[in-house]
Amino acid sequence: MGPREYRGPWPYTQGVVKPLPLEAKLAAFEEALSELVRSEVLFVQLIHQDLVTAGGKRIRPRLVFLASGAIGGAPFELELALAVELLHSATLLHDDLIDEAELRRGKEAAYRRYGNAVSVLSGDFLLSRLLHVIAKTGRLELVEMFAETARVLSEGEVLQFQVAALEDHSLENYERIITAKTAALMALATEGPAVLKGVEGEGRQALRRFGLHYGQAFQMRDDYLDLMGSPEVLGKPVGGDVREGKATLITLLLMERFPEAREILRRKGREEGDLERLRVLARESGVAEEVEARIRERALLAVEALDPLPDSPHKEVLRELALEEARRLS
Amino acid sequence: MGPREYRGPWPYTQGVVKPLPLEAKLAAFEEALSELVRSEVLFVQLIHQDLVTAGGKRIRPRLVFLASGAIGGAPFELELALAVELLHSATLLHDDLIDEAELRRGKEAAYRRYGNAVSVLSGDFLLSRLLHVIAKTGRLELVEMFAETARVLSEGEVLQFQVAALEDHSLENYERIITAKTAALMALATEGPAVLKGVEGEGRQALRRFGLHYGQAFQMRDDYLDLMGSPEVLGKPVGGDVREGKATLITLLLMERFPEAREILRRKGREEGDLERLRVLARESGVAEEVEARIRERALLAVEALDPLPDSPHKEVLRELALEEARRLS
Repeated sequence: MGPREYRGPWPYTQGVVKPLPLEAKLAAFEEALSELVRSEVLFVQLIHQDLVTAGGKRIRPRLVFLASGAIGGAPFELELALAVELLHSATLLHDDLIDEAELRRGKEAAYRRYGNAVSVLSGDFLLSRLLHVIAKTGRLELVEMFAETARVLSEGEVLQFQVAALEDHSLENYERIITAKTAALMALATEGPAVLKGVEGEGRQALRRFGLHYGQAFQMRDDYLDLMGSPEVLGKPVGGDVREGKATLITLLLMERFPEAREILRRKGREEGDLERLRVLARESGVAEEVEARIRERALLAVEALDPLPDSPHKEVLRELALEEARRLS
Repeated sequence: MGPREYRGPWPYTQGVVKPLPLEAKLAAFEEALSELVRSEVLFVQLIHQDLVTAGGKRIRPRLVFLASGAIGGAPFELELALAVELLHSATLLHDDLIDEAELRRGKEAAYRRYGNAVSVLSGDFLLSRLLHVIAKTGRLELVEMFAETARVLSEGEVLQFQVAALEDHSLENYERIITAKTAALMALATEGPAVLKGVEGEGRQALRRFGLHYGQAFQMRDDYLDLMGSPEVLGKPVGGDVREGKATLITLLLMERFPEAREILRRKGREEGDLERLRVLARESGVAEEVEARIRERALLAVEALDPLPDSPHKEVLRELALEEARRLS
C-alpha cells in the first residue's frame, strides 16, 4: 500500500485553540524536565536555563508521545520522552564545541559564555539524568537500546569529523552519518513505546522504520536548508556545514559535477561569493531539485512505514509530520 | 576498634612472582576492555589505543575485585570493573579539555592530537559502552547508582570550574570537590560488589565507607603531590592546579596564613619563582606537614571502615592500599 494523499491541514500543526492531549503531555514533559535537571551547582543551573528549559521544537518527545498513542498508549512514555530529549540535549551541548556553531536554537552557543568545560560537563550531567530516568522504567531492554543508540550517535559524530578531516566524502558516508547522528535517536523515540508496551513484530517494526526514515528525511532537509535556506527562517547564517568542511547531499552532488564545488568545500567557503556560487550552481544545474526529490522520497518511505499500524489520530499526526518534511523545502 | 598496625610488605604491592588471582582478573579485564571499546570508526580506534588500552594503574578495577573478594566474590564483578573504569576514562577524556593538562598518564593529552571534538565524542562513546555493560548485570539498582555517581561527578567538575572562576575558595568546597570528583566513583567501585551479591547492612556500609575515605585520601595526596612532588615521579610538571587557579588543601591553608599565597593563586603562578615560593612557604610554615597529617588521618579512616568485614587476604590488600596513601608522601 502506497502513501495516501495529504488531506488538508491537521489541527495539531496549526496551533489549535482546543488543547489536544498531546499538548497536555508536552506541558507535563516541560515540567518534569525542569525538575529533572535541577542542580545545586550554579553553573549547571545557568546552562540549563539556557538550553533545556528554553524549549526548542521538542520533536523527539512529540515522536515518543505520538508513537505511544499509535499503539494505544505505552507505560512510562513520559520517562522515555525525557530520556530521548536528554540524550539529544547532551549531544547538542557536546556539539556546540565541535561544530563551533555560531548560534544554536537561535541563542548564543552555551560554551561561548561559560567555556568548553561547563558545556561538556553539563552534557555529562544530562547523560547522568538520562540514566536515572530510564532506570525508572524498570526495562533493561530499554537501557540496552539507549546504550546502542548512544554508541551509534557518538561514532556518527566522530565519523563526520573524520570524513571532514580526511576529505573522505562520499554518498555512503553521508548516509551513515545522517542515520547515526539523527535517525537512530528518532527511531528509538518511535520504537521505544513498543518496547515499553511489549508490542512485538510488525507494529514495533513499523514504528522503528518510521522513525528511521523520518529522521533521515529530517536531517537531509536540515542539511539542504543549511545551504539553500534563508538566514531569517533558519535563525542562523547559511553555509555552516561548508564552513566546517562538511559535505552534505547537495554539496556531494555538486562536487560530482563541478570541480569548482570541490574547491569551495576544500577552502571551507572562505572566499567572498563562495556560498552564493554554490547556491547558484545548485539551482541552475537542477541539483537543488534533485535533492528535494530525494528528501521527498525518504519522507514518503516514512509515511509508508506506518501502513501496518491501525488508523488513529496519532498515526495521522505522524503521517503529517513526515509529509511536512516533504513539503516545506524552500 | 581502631586501625591495626601495618605488618610489613604485602606481596601484592611488591610485584610478586607467584601470580595472585587478582592479577589474573586484571588480565581478563584488559582483554574485555579492548573488546568492549572496539569501533569501526578509525578516529575512535586511535583514541582508545591511546587512552584505554594504554593501561594506567587500574586502581578502580582493583578496588572492585578486592571488594568483591572481601565478601566472598560477587557475580558480574568483571562487568562492574569495566563500567567503573569506563566512567573514569570518559571523565579523563572530558577532563583533558578542561584541565588543559599538558600530560595525562604520561602521554600527550588526546585532544591535542585529534582535536576537542574527538575527545569529547570518544568520551561519549565510552559512556555508551558503560551503559551497555551495566545493562548486562541485569541489576537496575546498579544502573541507578551509576546514574547518581555520574551526576555527582559531573556536578563536582563543574563546581571546581565555578569555584576557580569565582575565586570562591574554601575548605568546604574543597571537600565537596574531592568527594564528587574522586571519592564517589571509588565508593561505587567498592559498594558495587555488595549490590551485585545482595549483601546489605554493615558489610555494604563498610565497603562504601572504605571507598569514600580511600578516594578522599587518594585525591588529597594527588593534589598534595601536584605542588610538592617531583616532576620525575609525577611524570608531569608540578603546579598544574595552581596554573589553573584551583585551590587544593595545601594552597587553601597557605592562603589562610599568607596573603602572598592568595596573590600567587590569583595570578595562576605566572611569575617566575611563584611555585617554588609556595613550596618553600609550605615547608617552612609547617603547612606541608599539616596536610600530610590530614591525608594520613583520612587514610586511617578508610582502614577503620574495613573493621566489620571478616578477615581475608582481600581485606588485607585493601588495608594495604589505604596505608600506602598514608605513607608515600614525598
